[in-house]
Amino acid sequence: MSVVKPSLEVCLSPALLHLYNTKGTVVVIIDIFRATSTITAALHNGAKSVVPVASVSECIDLGQKIPNSLTAGERDGKVAEGLQYGNSPLEYPAAFIKDKTLVLTTTNGTRLLHMVQDAAEIVIGSFLNLAVLCDYLLAQNKNVLLGCASWKDKFNLEDTLFAGAVIDRIGDSFDINCDAARGARHLHRATGGGNYIEFLKDSSHYKRLSAYGLQHDMEYCSTPDLHPVVPKLHGNEIVVVN
Amino acid sequence: MSVVKPSLEVCLSPALLHLYNTKGTVVVIIDIFRATSTITAALHNGAKSVVPVASVSECIDLGQKIPNSLTAGERDGKVAEGLQYGNSPLEYPAAFIKDKTLVLTTTNGTRLLHMVQDAAEIVIGSFLNLAVLCDYLLAQNKNVLLGCASWKDKFNLEDTLFAGAVIDRIGDSFDINCDAARGARHLHRATGGGNYIEFLKDSSHYKRLSAYGLQHDMEYCSTPDLHPVVPKLHGNEIVVVN
Repeated sequence: MSVVKPSLEVCLSPALLHLYNTKGTVVVIIDIFRATSTITAALHNGAKSVVPVASVSECIDLGQKIPNSLTAGERDGKVAEGLQYGNSPLEYPAAFIKDKTLVLTTTNGTRLLHMVQDAAEIVIGSFLNLAVLCDYLLAQNKNVLLGCASWKDKFNLEDTLFAGAVIDRIGDSFDINCDAARGARHLHRATGGGNYIEFLKDSSHYKRLSAYGLQHDMEYCSTPDLHPVVPKLHGNEIVVVN
Repeated sequence: MSVVKPSLEVCLSPALLHLYNTKGTVVVIIDIFRATSTITAALHNGAKSVVPVASVSECIDLGQKIPNSLTAGERDGKVAEGLQYGNSPLEYPAAFIKDKTLVLTTTNGTRLLHMVQDAAEIVIGSFLNLAVLCDYLLAQNKNVLLGCASWKDKFNLEDTLFAGAVIDRIGDSFDINCDAARGARHLHRATGGGNYIEFLKDSSHYKRLSAYGLQHDMEYCSTPDLHPVVPKLHGNEIVVVN
């Protein structure tokens, strides 16, 4: 008896998303520095939900409408004008975020999330939830698309490296005929088994965010399994999978 | 005295070309399997020029107008209907191609070549001309964009691997702040120093073309420096740089 495995593919940029069939697929949104890391941390620390929005003005509007909510988002490494908090997973400890709704706008991750229209489901991936996310993807037994938020549509190392980490863990359970997936796996293996932040120090995003003093943030975002929850989009908000 | 190096970037897909500034840049078109390999081989073997065209019908038209020309192009691994020859570098030995003009249509490489509008110049890259191309790029002392033809806009391993081979040779002479370039270099280093065809056996294109019995073709296209010429676009035709 031959068993047909579900497929696994990697989309390296939102500008390439139209090349992939997302219907019936579990799409994983990946924006390591730092949207999906922040979403994962906030939810694991007890946030009621995260509402991802595209613009600062929408963020302000929803923040006024949703009870017990916070608005957050950065532009150029600083809290955007009119918002209350930034895009760091370290800003949302349990004592602060518990039971609150985080209304979040980011440059790349949010945009990709809103571009995916017909997926079976949309979940959030980051190093912070690597292992539980992999277990979850295996359990669904559906086609998977790992979607890298990238940087203004350009390929980035950190999102692709995370895709490679997922593939190195669970790739054997999927049918992979996707060079982007193969390339991501090669990239992951080039780290020699997991000192991700050292590997990522030679990346555009690390250099950009270092100029804002965010080295510790990026080290945190590159650490596996600190926040073992699977965030999933339900309607307009992201909540933890039961 | 600080010397400003020219920049080097890698564009992984024609669908991302709009993200790069090609003005004043030397753009290298890369379509390893097999357009740019075939162009390099034909010109080194004495072809007068190669005329790249987008469609089969245009190929037929030009073949009738240009004296001493051949028409060539494949669709789905076979010579396209109405054309005379295929897209294999092995089809164009010196005894056959010398002084002729090759009118060539291909799916990916030709398209990318026609998309680049304002470059300082457009040259052709393949493993077959790796070393002389690198020397040429160094000598120009201009910004370089390595443009991967990819496969129907999806990232492919062989074009990116070639970009990585170029960067591993001459990257130190350029300012590289491009994650795609860094990723390509990691990919090249993953080959452990150069058994390219073994590395590429686990790629989508290798599997696709193997089904047509083209393994030997691909091995040839993965062999460095068999045809040391630099093909360059002049007007509508590609000729060898003096």
